[in-house]
Amino acid sequence: MNKNKIPLSLAEAQIEIEKIFAELNWNIEPKHLYAPIEYILDLGGKRIRPLLCLIASSMYGDWTESKNAAIGIEIFHNFTLLHDDIMDKAPIRRGKATVHEVWDENTAILSGDAMLIKAYQFIAQTKKEKLPSVLDLFSQTAIEVCEGQEYDMSFETRNDVNEQEYIHMIRLKTAVLLAASLKIGAIIGGANDDEANELYNFAIYLGLAFQLKDDFLDVYGNPETFGKRIGGDILCNKKTYMLINAIKLANAEQKKQLEYWLSIDNFDENEKINSVTKLYSEIGIDNLCKEKINEYQNLAMQSLKKIKNADTSVLETIANKLLNRKS
Amino acid sequence: MNKNKIPLSLAEAQIEIEKIFAELNWNIEPKHLYAPIEYILDLGGKRIRPLLCLIASSMYGDWTESKNAAIGIEIFHNFTLLHDDIMDKAPIRRGKATVHEVWDENTAILSGDAMLIKAYQFIAQTKKEKLPSVLDLFSQTAIEVCEGQEYDMSFETRNDVNEQEYIHMIRLKTAVLLAASLKIGAIIGGANDDEANELYNFAIYLGLAFQLKDDFLDVYGNPETFGKRIGGDILCNKKTYMLINAIKLANAEQKKQLEYWLSIDNFDENEKINSVTKLYSEIGIDNLCKEKINEYQNLAMQSLKKIKNADTSVLETIANKLLNRKS
Repeated sequence: MNKNKIPLSLAEAQIEIEKIFAELNWNIEPKHLYAPIEYILDLGGKRIRPLLCLIASSMYGDWTESKNAAIGIEIFHNFTLLHDDIMDKAPIRRGKATVHEVWDENTAILSGDAMLIKAYQFIAQTKKEKLPSVLDLFSQTAIEVCEGQEYDMSFETRNDVNEQEYIHMIRLKTAVLLAASLKIGAIIGGANDDEANELYNFAIYLGLAFQLKDDFLDVYGNPETFGKRIGGDILCNKKTYMLINAIKLANAEQKKQLEYWLSIDNFDENEKINSVTKLYSEIGIDNLCKEKINEYQNLAMQSLKKIKNADTSVLETIANKLLNRKS
Repeated sequence: MNKNKIPLSLAEAQIEIEKIFAELNWNIEPKHLYAPIEYILDLGGKRIRPLLCLIASSMYGDWTESKNAAIGIEIFHNFTLLHDDIMDKAPIRRGKATVHEVWDENTAILSGDAMLIKAYQFIAQTKKEKLPSVLDLFSQTAIEVCEGQEYDMSFETRNDVNEQEYIHMIRLKTAVLLAASLKIGAIIGGANDDEANELYNFAIYLGLAFQLKDDFLDVYGNPETFGKRIGGDILCNKKTYMLINAIKLANAEQKKQLEYWLSIDNFDENEKINSVTKLYSEIGIDNLCKEKINEYQNLAMQSLKKIKNADTSVLETIANKLLNRKS
């Protein structure tokens, strides 16, 4: 373990992850159980979690030993997407029909269950002496992600969600799995406890900043590159960082207008998006959100600076890529 | 490890299991995620799987070391019931409303997911040197139970299910978890591989016999003690051991009558149950099923006889209790 060890570059890690996922074989019986797993994994995505796992392990040791954990984490992540899509009745995921649309809800429930078990089967292939700590962190994280999803769903029917609760929710739903990906890689690579925990903290702040950036781009993003429809959160009154703070900081007239748009069921979609966006800008939510993103980004970088026994340059690259995206 | 070690009696194990489950605390946040878990676990049931786990470990060593695995197995079993009830749109479980009826489907999906993770958290508390083998067997079993549920669902829309496929399905859906419960207990207690495997085989045969007995009682059981409605399988054309063999062994006239009852949508329920039951008896399905149950029961007892290093008397008692039940 030394600072001179050269970690996998992002490009190298991406090539390895591509190979690893191309080699997985889901062509097993009963096909109807495993085909949906292959389908959702083949939708792709950035594979950011297994990348973090591989890179962290390469910073301290032999990255090939973290391969199975990386696979398990990505399968777990896709399991959450699969079941969340049922709960949200979402028709589209990454530009393609969701599993419950291609097959049916029962298939999506059962194949999702099988994915969660498969995720554990890959995690369980971690070398014996690291298994208990990796397994504990994985389970703790998995249950937190469920808790995050529960809070997210419960916020839909609440009108009194505050910023602290929102940050707690996105921490559970998004940040902890990014953080666990990195920490599990670090544990397998051989990092000491302090550095493994500091990498965890780094990724928590990175995850919070990343989710707030997503909230920001949902309002102010470039429609040609964002991937999702701009204003989607506004249309469904989603209690994001933006909306929670807008309600809190609006003056009487702005508040009246905001509440009008939140309350009516029949509206012109573009008119609602434009009006609420204008209110956000008047109230100064765009700058407030940018400042909060910066705050978390700085906290992330402070954590990274505490890493003394490994080369953190690749993680810096990834953080900048994730947070400076325009879409 | 010696034959003179006195295992927990069934009554002792039942008292311990009661205590263990009474001590679990689900009063944690977010309540909406954990309350359904407490609800389904409080519905009770025979707790046969954790009992088998505790008893097997007490046959070879210190049963208290298998407590967490026993809890994990029972939580896993109840997770499968919770998600199966969604898939079957079942309104009632053990005489009470199912979780998706008391709450809603999304809650049932998410709390089920959390149960599966919680099950792993208890399994993971197995002592370090036994953890890899216990974890592998648990995951392998869990995925097989999902495969069994998939086959069970796919049989509903197939008309060509044969006996071999049916036995394979009930092996996966019912027998493997009983077998894993016993084997995990034995592993933790310190049984050697041969004896752990023989106990696994014993419970596989016991599980098959138990499920066939269930099929039999669904037709020929005592309505006052069976717990479910007699004839339920007949009403929904379930491809049980009874129906599969009735179709195969019926003469031309009997086959015509069977197919009539399978094909019509509007019928008097009692008339259908009585007519099909009469056909089963004419074809001799009652005796055929009894013979098959005996065959598996004998195979189970042969496996048990191969156990040389432990006292198997409690397992014999349990086998007789499960298979000689009249309801």
